[in-house]
Amino acid sequence: MLLSSIASALECEFNSTDIEITGMNALKDATSSEVSFVAASKYKNDIQNTKAAAVIVPAALVEYVPSSCVALVVEHSYWSMAILSKYFAPLIEDDSLAEATIGEGSKVSPKAEIANGATIGKNCTIMAHVYIGAEAVVGDNTIIYPNVTVYRDCVIGSDCVIHANSCIGSDGFGFATDAKGEHKKIYQNGNVLIEDDVEIGSNTSIDRAVFGTTLIKKGVRIDNLVQIGHNCILGEYSVIVAQAGLAGSTTMGRNVVMGGQSATSGHLEIAAFTTMAARSGVTKSIKQSGLTFAGFPLMEHKQWLKLQAKIARLLKS
Amino acid sequence: MLLSSIASALECEFNSTDIEITGMNALKDATSSEVSFVAASKYKNDIQNTKAAAVIVPAALVEYVPSSCVALVVEHSYWSMAILSKYFAPLIEDDSLAEATIGEGSKVSPKAEIANGATIGKNCTIMAHVYIGAEAVVGDNTIIYPNVTVYRDCVIGSDCVIHANSCIGSDGFGFATDAKGEHKKIYQNGNVLIEDDVEIGSNTSIDRAVFGTTLIKKGVRIDNLVQIGHNCILGEYSVIVAQAGLAGSTTMGRNVVMGGQSATSGHLEIAAFTTMAARSGVTKSIKQSGLTFAGFPLMEHKQWLKLQAKIARLLKS
Amino acid sequence: MLLSSIASALECEFNSTDIEITGMNALKDATSSEVSFVAASKYKNDIQNTKAAAVIVPAALVEYVPSSCVALVVEHSYWSMAILSKYFAPLIEDDSLAEATIGEGSKVSPKAEIANGATIGKNCTIMAHVYIGAEAVVGDNTIIYPNVTVYRDCVIGSDCVIHANSCIGSDGFGFATDAKGEHKKIYQNGNVLIEDDVEIGSNTSIDRAVFGTTLIKKGVRIDNLVQIGHNCILGEYSVIVAQAGLAGSTTMGRNVVMGGQSATSGHLEIAAFTTMAARSGVTKSIKQSGLTFAGFPLMEHKQWLKLQAKIARLLKS
Repeated sequence: MLLSSIASALECEFNSTDIEITGMNALKDATSSEVSFVAASKYKNDIQNTKAAAVIVPAALVEYVPSSCVALVVEHSYWSMAILSKYFAPLIEDDSLAEATIGEGSKVSPKAEIANGATIGKNCTIMAHVYIGAEAVVGDNTIIYPNVTVYRDCVIGSDCVIHANSCIGSDGFGFATDAKGEHKKIYQNGNVLIEDDVEIGSNTSIDRAVFGTTLIKKGVRIDNLVQIGHNCILGEYSVIVAQAGLAGSTTMGRNVVMGGQSATSGHLEIAAFTTMAARSGVTKSIKQSGLTFAGFPLMEHKQWLKLQAKIARLLKS
Repeated sequence: MLLSSIASALECEFNSTDIEITGMNALKDATSSEVSFVAASKYKNDIQNTKAAAVIVPAALVEYVPSSCVALVVEHSYWSMAILSKYFAPLIEDDSLAEATIGEGSKVSPKAEIANGATIGKNCTIMAHVYIGAEAVVGDNTIIYPNVTVYRDCVIGSDCVIHANSCIGSDGFGFATDAKGEHKKIYQNGNVLIEDDVEIGSNTSIDRAVFGTTLIKKGVRIDNLVQIGHNCILGEYSVIVAQAGLAGSTTMGRNVVMGGQSATSGHLEIAAFTTMAARSGVTKSIKQSGLTFAGFPLMEHKQWLKLQAKIARLLKS
Repeated sequence: MLLSSIASALECEFNSTDIEITGMNALKDATSSEVSFVAASKYKNDIQNTKAAAVIVPAALVEYVPSSCVALVVEHSYWSMAILSKYFAPLIEDDSLAEATIGEGSKVSPKAEIANGATIGKNCTIMAHVYIGAEAVVGDNTIIYPNVTVYRDCVIGSDCVIHANSCIGSDGFGFATDAKGEHKKIYQNGNVLIEDDVEIGSNTSIDRAVFGTTLIKKGVRIDNLVQIGHNCILGEYSVIVAQAGLAGSTTMGRNVVMGGQSATSGHLEIAAFTTMAARSGVTKSIKQSGLTFAGFPLMEHKQWLKLQAKIARLLKS
């Protein structure tokens, strides 16, 4: 899409050299052919350092836009970003893509649906009522149980197991809201990448990234009914127990353990080898690795035990 | 079903004029061709004002039944109601209904199943392994991702998106229990109505009403793995974050926000523009609009912060 | 599999009489043709009393193995057990089994998939996109709504209802972890047995047992989005409300009620007629029947109310 067309779609002025824009991305990750956006002054450092071709920006923040980057000045930059996201959304399915390729030795149920453009590796088992979307890729020896949905562009490694009725790549929960309280969808044009040797339980949801990738690294074990928000990164061999939930954009180191019904809020960093007991609620980043936490608000597990003892005494007094 | 046949099914006396009964409903909502029921004396005002043709009632409450209404006197009215509910349950599928109609421009996967009697609007995308039940209606431009189940009689508006593996219209969790602890199903003969411009995440369950309608109003956004109990009403543009749960019959105003893993108990009223933080547990109605709450038991968010500070001090003492 | 082959697979010494081994099982349940394992000294009584043909055991515990039982001495017994479990895993599907048998009067959607070796009773309704695995059995008059997955070897009784998108028999969350933090799958070779007159909501997961059976007894009612871990036993007429979760190997008596979003940790015993309020978190066994609990940590409901009153006073002080 031409940058001039983007300016036109967002109803903002445009006096710069025109170039072809290939997509949207976060300020930090955008390349010189991508458009980014900024909504709040706390990101002014990120604006100054962005490599984006252009940035959607409110007038108050124009001064931070570097000279290498076109400022697309709008009133409500988050809302305008939502408008633009639709233009970069690919077709849900695309009949013009080549028929899916299925590797040698793979058993694909005639009652599965493999969309055009998908690629299945060798010796896979793809069971009945599975859906594999356009340009999705599945590695070798992977087992996908019935009624699993894999959305377009998602990538699943080799030696993985995905249990029944789970969903890989549904849209992240993203929308802009205007002053009247009405919402506009932010199209989630990223994907999910699941590395090798990952096992995922039944009825679990892993959302695709808004831009870029929701990443589940090698050896991770995810139980049933787990929610993984868009743009999360789970470190190698992490273990997420049933009914736990991660809001968006949290990054975890390797071998993190989240107990049943625990949760993390968005945009956190969790150090490697952190253990969160069942029902933990994590609202701040955890910098030191190897510790065990519990409670909501979160505290070290030994503190939590001490607190429970105090509460028990309070109750008796 | 004739009122005399109902009396006979419930093994109770019947000396009134016979009429045709079209269904069952709550005391407040029942019309003059419907049967209702009452189980507890706290509803005696509702009995006195009901327009129902007949009411299933224990002997102790007969005195409150208005003269316009036939009293069907039974020992255990809730159990008898459960017995009767089965008689009004429609067929799950009905081959005698006309083949489904599909609007112009809609793309329905050959691997979807659209039951007889269903209606799909224009320019919809109905993907593989979707099920649309008998007499269900889908508006225009709506996208239903793979493995979604829409039960019979449910209505989905235009410009909606329903993500994979969600379920619209499963039975509400309703049964009567006798003195021995055994249960009898209360057939859930209502439906779900989703208005226009609603987006629903993956692996979410929205239960059909026992009578009447579970209602999701215009512009609502529901995330993944959310539970909406029977007969809830969600106000316009409300936002329900992942793994939140609503028990039955709660009514919310517009732009209510429920954080992740939050919950409401049954039969509450939540004022418009209420925000509930993640993990909130709401057990009482919220009358004043525009406030922010947290915690379980629920308190205003600023109180909750104060409580956490006190608990932190308690822990240090 | 010959015991000598098992020793060879686990790279341990073998000087005993060879016999055919039919499977793996827990120390207490293993028969004289099964192999068991032990990882910790706290189970030494169970070792001494086992009827297993052989036990996988670390050197430090060999002394407790009875003379009737072959000791398979390994360095890491849990890891070795994981290795062995794969050898006893049946094929996911088995084309050599006879075509499924469908009882008289049953209506099976042409868009359902009934694997070879499965048996469907009389007058069932098996809807579109349902999957019934190899050697699974469904009783009479049972209704299975669309997109339900029933894994191989699972048994569902008569007069049951399973709502859409639920999953019966996905693998329990079992793996061994080595010193580097890497995981090895423990194949879940048991099944799920659901007795008669059970109703299960939508998007619910019931995991198969690692050995033996996850058991849902007669008359149980399970709501939506519930997690039942491997090897749990739910007593007759128990009621599990939406989004509740049971970790593995917990046994409940009859008429236990678990409120919404409540949870139990693993290996507990819950007495009959126990009620757990919404959000309860149960970490210890409950011996006395008929009580009502709340909170996390759990306490009697009346204590919990008292605690909330004290907290409210603390907040005002």
